[in-house]
Amino acid sequence: MKKRIGILTSGGDCPGLNAAIRGVARASYALFDAEIIGIRGGYKGLIEGDYQLMSKYQFSNILTMGGTILGTSRTPFKEMRVVGDDNVDKVAAMKENYEKMGLDCLVTLGGNGTHKTANMLSQEGLNVIGLPKTIDNDIFGTDFTFGFHTAVDIATDVIDRIHTTAASHNRVMVVEIMGNKSGWLTLYAGLAGGADAILIPELPYDIEKVAEVIEKRSIENKNFTIIAVAEGAMDVDEARMKRKDREDKRKEEGTNFISVRIANQLREMLNVEARTVIPGHILRGGSPCAYDRVLSTQFGVHAAQLISNGTYGVTVALEGEKIRHNSLAVIAGVPKPVTPSNYIVRTARSMGVSFCDEEE
Amino acid sequence: MKKRIGILTSGGDCPGLNAAIRGVARASYALFDAEIIGIRGGYKGLIEGDYQLMSKYQFSNILTMGGTILGTSRTPFKEMRVVGDDNVDKVAAMKENYEKMGLDCLVTLGGNGTHKTANMLSQEGLNVIGLPKTIDNDIFGTDFTFGFHTAVDIATDVIDRIHTTAASHNRVMVVEIMGNKSGWLTLYAGLAGGADAILIPELPYDIEKVAEVIEKRSIENKNFTIIAVAEGAMDVDEARMKRKDREDKRKEEGTNFISVRIANQLREMLNVEARTVIPGHILRGGSPCAYDRVLSTQFGVHAAQLISNGTYGVTVALEGEKIRHNSLAVIAGVPKPVTPSNYIVRTARSMGVSFCDEEE
Amino acid sequence: MKKRIGILTSGGDCPGLNAAIRGVARASYALFDAEIIGIRGGYKGLIEGDYQLMSKYQFSNILTMGGTILGTSRTPFKEMRVVGDDNVDKVAAMKENYEKMGLDCLVTLGGNGTHKTANMLSQEGLNVIGLPKTIDNDIFGTDFTFGFHTAVDIATDVIDRIHTTAASHNRVMVVEIMGNKSGWLTLYAGLAGGADAILIPELPYDIEKVAEVIEKRSIENKNFTIIAVAEGAMDVDEARMKRKDREDKRKEEGTNFISVRIANQLREMLNVEARTVIPGHILRGGSPCAYDRVLSTQFGVHAAQLISNGTYGVTVALEGEKIRHNSLAVIAGVPKPVTPSNYIVRTARSMGVSFCDEEE
Amino acid sequence: MKKRIGILTSGGDCPGLNAAIRGVARASYALFDAEIIGIRGGYKGLIEGDYQLMSKYQFSNILTMGGTILGTSRTPFKEMRVVGDDNVDKVAAMKENYEKMGLDCLVTLGGNGTHKTANMLSQEGLNVIGLPKTIDNDIFGTDFTFGFHTAVDIATDVIDRIHTTAASHNRVMVVEIMGNKSGWLTLYAGLAGGADAILIPELPYDIEKVAEVIEKRSIENKNFTIIAVAEGAMDVDEARMKRKDREDKRKEEGTNFISVRIANQLREMLNVEARTVIPGHILRGGSPCAYDRVLSTQFGVHAAQLISNGTYGVTVALEGEKIRHNSLAVIAGVPKPVTPSNYIVRTARSMGVSFCDEEE
Repeated sequence: MKKRIGILTSGGDCPGLNAAIRGVARASYALFDAEIIGIRGGYKGLIEGDYQLMSKYQFSNILTMGGTILGTSRTPFKEMRVVGDDNVDKVAAMKENYEKMGLDCLVTLGGNGTHKTANMLSQEGLNVIGLPKTIDNDIFGTDFTFGFHTAVDIATDVIDRIHTTAASHNRVMVVEIMGNKSGWLTLYAGLAGGADAILIPELPYDIEKVAEVIEKRSIENKNFTIIAVAEGAMDVDEARMKRKDREDKRKEEGTNFISVRIANQLREMLNVEARTVIPGHILRGGSPCAYDRVLSTQFGVHAAQLISNGTYGVTVALEGEKIRHNSLAVIAGVPKPVTPSNYIVRTARSMGVSFCDEEE
Repeated sequence: MKKRIGILTSGGDCPGLNAAIRGVARASYALFDAEIIGIRGGYKGLIEGDYQLMSKYQFSNILTMGGTILGTSRTPFKEMRVVGDDNVDKVAAMKENYEKMGLDCLVTLGGNGTHKTANMLSQEGLNVIGLPKTIDNDIFGTDFTFGFHTAVDIATDVIDRIHTTAASHNRVMVVEIMGNKSGWLTLYAGLAGGADAILIPELPYDIEKVAEVIEKRSIENKNFTIIAVAEGAMDVDEARMKRKDREDKRKEEGTNFISVRIANQLREMLNVEARTVIPGHILRGGSPCAYDRVLSTQFGVHAAQLISNGTYGVTVALEGEKIRHNSLAVIAGVPKPVTPSNYIVRTARSMGVSFCDEEE
Repeated sequence: MKKRIGILTSGGDCPGLNAAIRGVARASYALFDAEIIGIRGGYKGLIEGDYQLMSKYQFSNILTMGGTILGTSRTPFKEMRVVGDDNVDKVAAMKENYEKMGLDCLVTLGGNGTHKTANMLSQEGLNVIGLPKTIDNDIFGTDFTFGFHTAVDIATDVIDRIHTTAASHNRVMVVEIMGNKSGWLTLYAGLAGGADAILIPELPYDIEKVAEVIEKRSIENKNFTIIAVAEGAMDVDEARMKRKDREDKRKEEGTNFISVRIANQLREMLNVEARTVIPGHILRGGSPCAYDRVLSTQFGVHAAQLISNGTYGVTVALEGEKIRHNSLAVIAGVPKPVTPSNYIVRTARSMGVSFCDEEE
Repeated sequence: MKKRIGILTSGGDCPGLNAAIRGVARASYALFDAEIIGIRGGYKGLIEGDYQLMSKYQFSNILTMGGTILGTSRTPFKEMRVVGDDNVDKVAAMKENYEKMGLDCLVTLGGNGTHKTANMLSQEGLNVIGLPKTIDNDIFGTDFTFGFHTAVDIATDVIDRIHTTAASHNRVMVVEIMGNKSGWLTLYAGLAGGADAILIPELPYDIEKVAEVIEKRSIENKNFTIIAVAEGAMDVDEARMKRKDREDKRKEEGTNFISVRIANQLREMLNVEARTVIPGHILRGGSPCAYDRVLSTQFGVHAAQLISNGTYGVTVALEGEKIRHNSLAVIAGVPKPVTPSNYIVRTARSMGVSFCDEEE
């Protein structure tokens, strides 16, 4: 059985992309007579016809490499169906290039946006398989996405380092962690790093309650406080606004970073020394941790098996110790937010970690 | 509601023990009027009455610490019911000290041996809750034990480091990884580190097939080979022997380390430069990884909730994203071996990793 | 011989402080009949009389700890001689507390500011010994300060992680590294991390030349560029201004971070995707690297030997493989800037790294 | 000016080799019209004529890579002048291949053995420049060799991890660290890791004194002991023997590993639980630390400058903050042993670390 497979990586880069690509490739070569075409720079490469036939050896020595050997780009889903100034019908171009390459299947590695486009292409009649990658862990239907645990490791290491400087200087440290819409990364790293408060988009915070955390610790002679805040966190007032209004409000305030605003507020309210730490892109770089190497490889192998069986229109998923798959039509673009009833949220509250939200 | 809780850690030390202890303690203090008694040196401390009332502050700053603040020891289950030269009835002594401490519950952190004793004490009428810790991941009923992923990280790092020296010197490197009866650690680290062959106790190996892996790579111009072997791995002949006979045979051969034997055999068979690496206790030391800190904390909190509800005679377990518990009577001493049908075993085979076993 | 020694840590915290404190203490206990008094929170504690007699065991288990067990604070030298609103004569208070404690010697661990005050106290007649700690490495008379190499390690790790994300996204990444007046940290980390341009306070940059670096790489089909910039870097125009004017100009521009300004400029000039990474306090936290543990210990032991010999008014220094000391009067407050003729600067230029300065 | 440069790496692999190769190459391309020939597998490749002209791009992306892209091998110096069974005059072959390649200079990266051959080739009339690489740090005339500090980092990390398991189990842990003739690595890592005793080849130990260290700690209620031992350490009796006799004695005893012997002895003498840890090749693998990346790069650049100036017959060296060079004739094969008067030895003694040697 001969099959031609196209692979692309789309959206923000993420540890484990190369391990997953290697998994798809090696298992495909093992399971059937595979030809693999690497599409450059995500959907952009599919639209513009930027691709090349890969040789087996190109998948060697990439298991431990960060980033993606295929390159990536962000093409928002909502622009996919729009014909822009360049007068290119992107959907038609992608279908055309799929045919031109003679693909039996397109494998797309990405997050929620990537999956939406993957689903559209599937409904347009292409054979598509998705692999859920994102440091945000916010894809419905899978216990974990790959890249997440590596990012948790790095963010936890940041909080560990901040602990000593916070304690030595009696400071409030506000650590801003990636996650625009999703608080999973901040939640896990905050719990693993022993943060005193965790502020995430899904659980809008009350700055008065943040101040209370610091004051309560001060009474207990704990002279420093660590606050882990997701970049997309918002306070209870902002949470009631429309997104557009919220963005306008922030622009007016001139605060690019939520951590900077919180530190400013706390300084004013409590007269404490408050500092911000914004690790940013550090969280998505470098070699994947062992967990993500195994998960990426398992996802890649599962995709190859699906191709071997002719099962398309699905995305791979982790469920307990098993690898499964879900219909793209069902999960595409469906987020997986942190909810107050999540076991880990309740665990954190039991440990005395405050979310500074309405429930407390 | 006032409750007195005794905690002990038993068996080999393991990353996450302190995080789990902290989890039990903090959540207990939060959920009810808790008094916590630390029992020193595992069951030995329970037998000898070596314990102390802990203060809250003793659970601070231990989240990231390796080892166990309570100390540990190994008292094999089979000796528990035996009255030795010291004429001490160990079971009676443990029950007596449980009464003397006025405990409402005993929390035991350990592996399969620890759980067997925990179950016995439960059947003797004590209130007991188990927490599954082991770098071996071989406890029935839980997706993962805590300590496992930290050990996988360390073992993977070892294999990563060995890669460069193997490639520079055209060597066969045999990396021996802890795991006397269980191959999980070797399997995960081998897959994460890109080992070419993985030899584990559950899948007896044929040394001829190991040699074939090296020869096949040599034909493909790959000048080095990495073999990950669990310390308890055995070849197909040994697997047919009784344990006692196998141990006698090894003693006669004078090989303490399976990796040394394999390297010797390969040198003789293939005239290659073969070296062994035996990281040993490095794999169980140091700070737990973020995954294990979160898991240990969740396990500890769950134990506190069980105590709060008066649910005893169980051990805590991970199932997908949820924390559950199993009856001690059901899981005590039941191992969880790697089986050929495990998804990760099939993943590894699809990736071209050889187990050198009968199936191949 | 009985001696009473006071120790304080002053200025920003830094990896190796605890190792150095331990070094002073252990060697003092070994060399003479020592009593050690820990002064809390830097010179503030000396002024306010916040101190305690330490016991031997307080110096155990701190070798690997980040931060400082004594706490620290920043009291600028220029305010030392000024009597403020609180009407406290700080110098008199420090002398008084020195007498009250019955000290034979005061050991101060800190940077240039700390050494200025140490020298003043020495000239006031106190027995003072300095230990050069700073992640900036800008203290005259010593090859290296402790804390520096740990910070270089962390900053290099940041650049390593940024590499994969830069390459995957075809981005210009501007990494801002601590160092207000000193470029050593940026220089070492930039060279170790393979940065393409290094911008430091001592060598004012021309933004046009920064743009040229990117364009030249683009011509060579290198699709990404890493720029390491010290937080105190300035362009050639700013370098000609007085400090006050420069600060006013920046305030007007509204740019807190030099990396943000540079990224904005490059985006405008070249229409590239440019991102900033600002690790900040991460660089000074956590356990010291092996190099700094050894250096801190050697510095601490040397200080104890000086006390044993009755040699005061000096600061400890590294010279090749030897530990020496310099007169406080000679080195206090004397900075050690990077100069164009430094071997490492010329090394970097030979490697094709651009400083974008006037020389190029 | 056009120059043809041959490069080879010889002896055990070591972190920083690739960084140094890159340094030589990049600086050569920058300083003159360079052609670089990579010689495969050390002197073996020079003897057998196994080499290739390198292109510039082959030196990209290797700064952070462990191992050596050129491969390496061990050809003992004493065999160089011997014509073996293969009837090859190795010296003549090397000279011939040097001519055949049309080299202006041969750059050799290696340790003491490598330098001896380099010196011989220099005296035979070839233009040779040496770069001192070894994790042993035992090359005369340079403060440090590259690779050393990376190995110290890894060995220190091993000791850090062992600490928690030692303390949890009340154990004596004997950590065996590479270093057949040289104790530098064990000394630095032992001091950085807080070992209680350090046993090195240069300072023969008395096992009675090792036992005393443990007993003394026990009296102070310190329930565990860490012993760092170099693989080439020997006791005072062995130190008096001829090398051959010592080796025979060990063979008879059946102890491959000095750590195993010491642990056995301590178990017998003190009835303690003693375990060994033998990290072995882990110490020389993986990415070089920042320090070694900088040092390797500086060494490589200096070599290029020497070539540019036509200075040959030398090896590069670190002296304080400066890069210098020494005559091959002077330093070739001259070891740099640890001596009792080294500052770091005296530092360790002042810290209460025991060498268990005659001086104590």
